[in-house]
Amino acid sequence: MPLITPQDIAAAQTVISGRLHRTPIQPSAFLSNQTGARVHLKLELFQKTGSFKPRGVLNRLHHMSIEEKSKGIITLSAGNHAQAVAWAAQQEGIPATVIMPAHAVQAKVDATRGYGGEVIQTDGNLLEVCQHVQEERGLTLVHPFDHPDIIAGQGTVGQEILEDVPDVDLVIVGVGGGGLISGVAVAIKQANPTARVIGVEPEGAPTMTRSLEKNAPAHLDHVDTVADGLAAPFVGAHNLAHVQTFVDELVQISDEEIIRSMWLIIERCKVVAEPAAASTVAALLSGQVTVPQGGQVVCILSGGNVDRERLKRMA
Amino acid sequence: MPLITPQDIAAAQTVISGRLHRTPIQPSAFLSNQTGARVHLKLELFQKTGSFKPRGVLNRLHHMSIEEKSKGIITLSAGNHAQAVAWAAQQEGIPATVIMPAHAVQAKVDATRGYGGEVIQTDGNLLEVCQHVQEERGLTLVHPFDHPDIIAGQGTVGQEILEDVPDVDLVIVGVGGGGLISGVAVAIKQANPTARVIGVEPEGAPTMTRSLEKNAPAHLDHVDTVADGLAAPFVGAHNLAHVQTFVDELVQISDEEIIRSMWLIIERCKVVAEPAAASTVAALLSGQVTVPQGGQVVCILSGGNVDRERLKRMA
Repeated sequence: MPLITPQDIAAAQTVISGRLHRTPIQPSAFLSNQTGARVHLKLELFQKTGSFKPRGVLNRLHHMSIEEKSKGIITLSAGNHAQAVAWAAQQEGIPATVIMPAHAVQAKVDATRGYGGEVIQTDGNLLEVCQHVQEERGLTLVHPFDHPDIIAGQGTVGQEILEDVPDVDLVIVGVGGGGLISGVAVAIKQANPTARVIGVEPEGAPTMTRSLEKNAPAHLDHVDTVADGLAAPFVGAHNLAHVQTFVDELVQISDEEIIRSMWLIIERCKVVAEPAAASTVAALLSGQVTVPQGGQVVCILSGGNVDRERLKRMA
Repeated sequence: MPLITPQDIAAAQTVISGRLHRTPIQPSAFLSNQTGARVHLKLELFQKTGSFKPRGVLNRLHHMSIEEKSKGIITLSAGNHAQAVAWAAQQEGIPATVIMPAHAVQAKVDATRGYGGEVIQTDGNLLEVCQHVQEERGLTLVHPFDHPDIIAGQGTVGQEILEDVPDVDLVIVGVGGGGLISGVAVAIKQANPTARVIGVEPEGAPTMTRSLEKNAPAHLDHVDTVADGLAAPFVGAHNLAHVQTFVDELVQISDEEIIRSMWLIIERCKVVAEPAAASTVAALLSGQVTVPQGGQVVCILSGGNVDRERLKRMA
C-alpha cells in the first residue's frame, strides 16, 4: 500500500489555500498548568463547515477529472463529512448525493441539504446503498477517509501545526476511520521523527486498535460512543498502513472522560469542541499518555459540531 | 467631568502590552449572511481571567503610587472584575481584598480566592461594606468602572478593533456600569467620527438609559437579568459623561433574546460567550439596530465566564 508524502501534503496546501481557513493554534495556560507541558489547541473547530473534513474533500475534488466532476459525487456519512462534501460540491458547482442513516441528527441532515446536497436516508447498510446509487447514477465516490487525496488534504492540519509550533514534541489526534491521523502523522514524523503522534479511540469504537491487532482493516459489528465523529465501524486499508508506519501509540478513553473534557474546554478555554475533538484533551489528562515535562504538546480540536440539545443532554 | 483621550488609551496599550492577550477578531459568515453586513466578533472571551476586565485594572494599578500599592487594594464585584483584580494583584505582589455578595456564584468566589484574593462576602450593602473595610485598612479602591484609568484600559479593546478593522462602521458593546463602552467609544469616535457605537442593556437593568433620561447617574433599586455581567445597579459619573459625548444609541433586549443568541454563538461560531457578551449579537439580530448593508460591524464578545451548571439551566 503506497504512503503519501510531505510533497502530497504541500500540494494539498496549495489547493486549499484561500478557500479554507488557516485555523489558529491557541496556548492553554490551564492545560499547561495541569500537565507540566506547554499545551496548545489546534482550533480546527473554526474551520468552514465546523470540522477539518473539507480539507480532504477539496483535495480529492482537485484530482478528479472534469468528466467525473460533471457526473457528480456521492458519499456516505452521518455527519461532518456529509456537510463537507455538500459544501465543497456547492463551491464547485458539482451535484452531490449523500447517503445518511435514517437516524442521523436532523440538524446535520438539514445542514447537508442547506449546502445543496441531495440526501438519501436509509436504515439499510449505508455502504451497500451508496454503492447501488453510485453505480446507477455513474457517480464518483468521495470516501470519508480511505483515499490518498483525502489523507493528503487532512495532512495540511499537521503542516500548519509544524508552522506554528516547529519544535512540537507530541501531537494528539482522534481516530475514527483514520483519515486525519494518517495525514497528520506523515507531516509530523517526516519533519521531526522524534516527535510522537498519539491516536485516541473511544472505548466503544476501538476500530484502529483491533485493525492493528489483526494486521488488517477491522469491521466492528457494534460501536457505542458519545463521540459520533469517531464512531466509524471500520477503518480503511490506506489508513491502517499510515498508522502502522507513522503513529507511535493508540490509547482508549471512556465516554465519561470525553464528556468531562468537553466541559473543561468550554469552561476554561471558551471554545466548543465536539466530543470527538475533546477526546484529545481527555487522553492528555487520562494519565495514559507520557507527557513531556516542559515540552510542546498539541491537541487537535478537530470539530465543533455539537448543538444545544446534545449539550443539554450531556450537561 | 474630564473625558479621556486617545492618548490615554495609547498609553494604556503600552501598559498592558505583553501582559495580556492581544485578542483576535473573527469574521462570522453566519452572522454576515443573516444581516447583510460583514460581521466580526472581537473575541475578548479569550482574555486572561475570561473577560476584558484586567485591561482596566492593570492600567489603574500602573497609575497608583508605590505606597498605595504596598498598602493594598480593595474592590466590590460579583464576578469578572473580582477575578481580574485578584489576578492583577497577584501579578504585582499586592494584597487584594474583594467584597462579594453572599449569594455570588461559588465558582467565581473560588476563582478569586484561587488568584490569592481575600474574599469578604456580605448580604449587606456591598458599597457600604467596601467603604468600611477600605477606611479601616487604608486600602485603595479599584472601582469596577467609574475611574478614568479603568476607562482608558478598557479603551484598548476599541483601539485593537481599529487596528484589525480600520474601516469599521458599527461597534456594538454591552453596558453594565459603562466602563467598557466609555473607553471603546472614545477610541472609535475620535478615530472615525462617522462610525457608530451602540450600547446594549438588558431590559431588566437599563441603568444607563435611566441615567441619560435624568442626566445624572441613576441607581436602580432592583435589577433582574440573566446577564450578570451587565447587572450593575448603577453607573458612574465618568461613564455617563463619556456615553453622553460619544455613544450614538442605546438599545434594550430581553433575557430570552440574550439566551437565544448565546446558543447561536455556541452552535455557529463555536465560542462560549457569557450572556453579557451574547447581548451584542442579540442586539444585532433584534431588528432594533440599523445594520449598514455591506458595512463592517464588530460585536464585542466581552467575556466567556459561564459554567456547565448555568449553561444547563439555560439550555
